[in-house]
Amino acid sequence: MTETADTQPGWLAPEELESVRGRMPVLYVQAVPVRVDEAGQVTHIGLLLRATPDGSFQRSVVSGRVLYHERVRDALLRHLEKDLGPVALPRIPGSPQPFTVAEYFPTPGVTPFHDARQHAVALAYIVPVSGDCQPRQDALDLVWFTPEEAASPQLREEMTGGQGVLLRQALAYVGHAP
Amino acid sequence: MTETADTQPGWLAPEELESVRGRMPVLYVQAVPVRVDEAGQVTHIGLLLRATPDGSFQRSVVSGRVLYHERVRDALLRHLEKDLGPVALPRIPGSPQPFTVAEYFPTPGVTPFHDARQHAVALAYIVPVSGDCQPRQDALDLVWFTPEEAASPQLREEMTGGQGVLLRQALAYVGHAP
Amino acid sequence: MTETADTQPGWLAPEELESVRGRMPVLYVQAVPVRVDEAGQVTHIGLLLRATPDGSFQRSVVSGRVLYHERVRDALLRHLEKDLGPVALPRIPGSPQPFTVAEYFPTPGVTPFHDARQHAVALAYIVPVSGDCQPRQDALDLVWFTPEEAASPQLREEMTGGQGVLLRQALAYVGHAP
Amino acid sequence: MTETADTQPGWLAPEELESVRGRMPVLYVQAVPVRVDEAGQVTHIGLLLRATPDGSFQRSVVSGRVLYHERVRDALLRHLEKDLGPVALPRIPGSPQPFTVAEYFPTPGVTPFHDARQHAVALAYIVPVSGDCQPRQDALDLVWFTPEEAASPQLREEMTGGQGVLLRQALAYVGHAP
Repeated sequence: MTETADTQPGWLAPEELESVRGRMPVLYVQAVPVRVDEAGQVTHIGLLLRATPDGSFQRSVVSGRVLYHERVRDALLRHLEKDLGPVALPRIPGSPQPFTVAEYFPTPGVTPFHDARQHAVALAYIVPVSGDCQPRQDALDLVWFTPEEAASPQLREEMTGGQGVLLRQALAYVGHAP
Repeated sequence: MTETADTQPGWLAPEELESVRGRMPVLYVQAVPVRVDEAGQVTHIGLLLRATPDGSFQRSVVSGRVLYHERVRDALLRHLEKDLGPVALPRIPGSPQPFTVAEYFPTPGVTPFHDARQHAVALAYIVPVSGDCQPRQDALDLVWFTPEEAASPQLREEMTGGQGVLLRQALAYVGHAP
Repeated sequence: MTETADTQPGWLAPEELESVRGRMPVLYVQAVPVRVDEAGQVTHIGLLLRATPDGSFQRSVVSGRVLYHERVRDALLRHLEKDLGPVALPRIPGSPQPFTVAEYFPTPGVTPFHDARQHAVALAYIVPVSGDCQPRQDALDLVWFTPEEAASPQLREEMTGGQGVLLRQALAYVGHAP
Repeated sequence: MTETADTQPGWLAPEELESVRGRMPVLYVQAVPVRVDEAGQVTHIGLLLRATPDGSFQRSVVSGRVLYHERVRDALLRHLEKDLGPVALPRIPGSPQPFTVAEYFPTPGVTPFHDARQHAVALAYIVPVSGDCQPRQDALDLVWFTPEEAASPQLREEMTGGQGVLLRQALAYVGHAP
């Protein structure tokens, strides 16, 4: 799963985290940033653009670990701020019920989701953002797509590890045709 | 179900609506207005206060019919504006998935919900509002309660037709103890 | 929306129903029949095959009206029995929360769903069936598809009125890639 | 959170698990076993009865860890079999969407859920069981309650760590008055 470095120190040293990653599932949150109109209809979906070590590009939603003693909603807020900047004004959902749970397995094919490094289980939420987004850290850009563009096969190819599936699940959840 | 008069003319004359009400289920939307903090946590629930013809008071959520050729999200927006005024700034959910479906039967006891006038089926949503609420029409007031206050037995007694159940379902959905 | 004739008399005479259909939204239920394995994973999706008046074929999920004084779960059970026969053993969900609400408008393009006859609002549910399905009435057959087959563009073309969108939303909801 | 010993060895030695428990959130599943009627309506809720070390009794839902490289649905199945025996015939939900996410914090008061040993995040599901339940391991009994009994204040006092809240959230989700 694409993920930027944590902006605040984790409660596990890096080598400990690596060790744990091979032995228990790691809890993640994932947020699909959206623009909505006055009636709540999703008009655009925001995807981060990143350069990969091999020189290609990939698109992704906002993702990150839930830390020890951190609420899921605080983890969402932290990762959204980390990836979209301090004035994105995300509206974290009132309910803890995610629209789906994405299970990233180190072995491909167990589920539609894959993460070579670890077994990660991600609670996925739609998050309307109304402010100005300034991608930070290793993201090159945040690009807004219409639901039709987001459902295109081309975009799907630019997302790895099953995030294209997650994006289509998000589109389905907000009433669009994936 | 408590409901104010429609502010825009329906597509059915009043006597026709009365006739239909006794012969097919009528589609409603219900919205539980909430205040949320930066992390999306619900801090307050808003309930309308109304005087009943017999001189007592009752509290209710925002309710109203879905009209012909009206989207559910537009019906939500219309009834929220009708009951909370034009500057309440409601955030209609992005997904059409309601947190529950409340079935109001003219016969008490079929479900926890009862409406002597009709068989109404209501799609229920949590709607954060960030603006200034000015109850209009026949509502005397909009009062904000903490989740603890909203879960109290006393408040439950001030809600009729099963709306106390709906309120508790809303509290449960946003992670509070009903 | 494809729909078989009601097996029990409605509470509205046909001409009355026609009249109402042009003036208020009509409440429907839709059920996507699925086969599941021991762990609840959906292995197959069942679609009805029908001949249309113009001699072509189309596939659809189970659909039908909610009658006056009928619970949503009883309407689901009635339409499933009507379309799949008496020994399909459907497992109606415990929660009234639908996976989506599909709004069929008489005007194309308002939502992804279209029904020339009426404004229908359908509560959509996934329904595992474990018994033997014997399509009745005007359905020629019930065909089971794997999730991969169900997501194919070809199948989508055989579904009208937006039911292909509903099918993809159902696939997304049960964790598959639509 | 009440939990029986794992019936199959975890991928972490006990002392390692203790160490990790203090430093990252641990992923759990929780299942509320229910009996349903033909129309899917929940008629009874099953709660495990256990003796505590101090000689009192407490009631709980089915709970347990998700292991490394185990799907959420397989963890549900494993813990249900562990607690209810091999012929309970649980019907694991088709969708990975939980009805809520319960966050058990080692510090009381952060959320309604508390677990002195660890920070556990539980995906909670309603699971209809149709077979014969034979509680195993350290559970004394599995007792079935009507929704009205399950909502009683007395029962709430017999559940610890916030499981009474989870039970009420489950009742709300299946359409009952908590």
